[in-house]
Amino acid sequence: MTDMLPVVVVQGGAGFVPRQRSEASTSGVCAAARAAYAILQGGGSSMDAVLEAVTNLENNPVFNAGCGSVLNVKGDIEMDAIVMDGKTLGSGAVSAVRNIANPVQLARLVMEKTSHACLTAEGASKFARDMGIPEVPQESLITEYSRMRWKDNLEPDANPVQCQMGKMGTVGAVAVDREGNTACATSTGGMLNKMEGRVGDTPMIGSGSYADNKVGAVSITGHGEAIMKVALARLIMFHMEQGQSVEAASDLGLAYMKSRVDGLGGVVTVDPQGHWAARFSSLQMAWAAAQKDTLHHGLYCGEHFTQSID
Amino acid sequence: MTDMLPVVVVQGGAGFVPRQRSEASTSGVCAAARAAYAILQGGGSSMDAVLEAVTNLENNPVFNAGCGSVLNVKGDIEMDAIVMDGKTLGSGAVSAVRNIANPVQLARLVMEKTSHACLTAEGASKFARDMGIPEVPQESLITEYSRMRWKDNLEPDANPVQCQMGKMGTVGAVAVDREGNTACATSTGGMLNKMEGRVGDTPMIGSGSYADNKVGAVSITGHGEAIMKVALARLIMFHMEQGQSVEAASDLGLAYMKSRVDGLGGVVTVDPQGHWAARFSSLQMAWAAAQKDTLHHGLYCGEHFTQSID
Repeated sequence: MTDMLPVVVVQGGAGFVPRQRSEASTSGVCAAARAAYAILQGGGSSMDAVLEAVTNLENNPVFNAGCGSVLNVKGDIEMDAIVMDGKTLGSGAVSAVRNIANPVQLARLVMEKTSHACLTAEGASKFARDMGIPEVPQESLITEYSRMRWKDNLEPDANPVQCQMGKMGTVGAVAVDREGNTACATSTGGMLNKMEGRVGDTPMIGSGSYADNKVGAVSITGHGEAIMKVALARLIMFHMEQGQSVEAASDLGLAYMKSRVDGLGGVVTVDPQGHWAARFSSLQMAWAAAQKDTLHHGLYCGEHFTQSID
Repeated sequence: MTDMLPVVVVQGGAGFVPRQRSEASTSGVCAAARAAYAILQGGGSSMDAVLEAVTNLENNPVFNAGCGSVLNVKGDIEMDAIVMDGKTLGSGAVSAVRNIANPVQLARLVMEKTSHACLTAEGASKFARDMGIPEVPQESLITEYSRMRWKDNLEPDANPVQCQMGKMGTVGAVAVDREGNTACATSTGGMLNKMEGRVGDTPMIGSGSYADNKVGAVSITGHGEAIMKVALARLIMFHMEQGQSVEAASDLGLAYMKSRVDGLGGVVTVDPQGHWAARFSSLQMAWAAAQKDTLHHGLYCGEHFTQSID
């Protein structure tokens, strides 16, 4: 069974990816999966791998996390991120944090250097300073595209739903390393034109993320408020505990969210044996997976391309 | 079955209640349960009832929520609160909020007046101002006892574990109204001497609270970081979905948290038929329940006193 290990699966957000951005989204998740897979192949831990993948996506302006995050109603960037270690069930998260390049790395420091699981807003910034993490100007995180979409949504004839569509959700990764340890990491700029201080599902353990070596790991993307209503990450894990495959458990969770609270989203899922799935109920989700020297990726429902990793 | 309705169950925090404070804790939860029960008897909703109970406990300086909250490492009060409506699965929460008397009422406004489920820190304060909620001086929330314990814990020979014992956890309530609608509310000052910006399990849906008309409602107290690791609220609900009684599901959840992550806590639980439980793995938990004109209450394991409600 364990000859399937190691594996990493990456998601770049569920929703609608405009055509002119779809190629960059695909190449972004593929690059993140490759970088994380190199760590696993070198004997690195699943936690190191998901950190590498999500840092990669945060640094890529195409995605709604780190640089490229959507703007809140005031035109500012406030970000949420989490990591969870399936071996200990320990986690670290930050919410509504500003002026740092890589919230997911700060989340890991919360897990490793404090007795807490989540720090928010100015408290998270203070901790970042104490840890020697450089403050970056907000301008360095804002892309032209983000500012354009924010402005569009302030127009009197704006269609907030349509504005929301262009860039939804989060970025995230799940992995299993050679030892069978699972981990997940998720990071986001949240919802376009959100209120100041809005916290979504991402930093909430059991909603946007969960990892447990006895069951597997998941990272969720989609409409945060819907994901929270059904605590989707934990729900998918329960289906796996009851014997469902990674694919069936993911689909059952997403179908429940659709039928119960009319919410759409996507998920990447692994089990401790290295089985993996990338599933979504939204129109698209950029995803990539790396296992056995093969890179898998897709964007639309049913798409599954492969290429070899040298 | 529904002749058991309505019911409300209240908890005032798990942990160790010093002898000189045990009487006030008991009378506090009993008063909160009575006030909430009067609302249910008058035909009020379960949401109104849990709000009444938790507001009552926030206003009571004996409990670690609202006035009487523990102080963080800087000597400030930052509070977390949540409400959840079992009919819609909608919820509202605030985290690390300062200078308001009743965080649970602000949490309800987040649910009812925004499209979000959680607002944090300064964003939550701004929303409170927009809603016309008066800002109160921090001094009005700090009790002599809280300040004394904070100072004790700064002493060079302080025993942080012992300091933590005196006042742990949260306050919370669950209820079912005549229509069979479930609701929960939880509020806390968090952990003594916590870092600035620390967020615990309370505002995290599925960790400290959950309500679903198809299953029931729970409000959790105890060591926040342990509760989050196992997403305890959702776990107890899963046991109920699988046919366990409110009591058995609560005990199974608490036992799992003890065995898996060595965490202690307590819970109040209802199902939609009006069955209820108040269970804890800590030494004590002040609790009270009101149903069929009878008030039930207890503090130590196995205690169950009753008196009639006129």
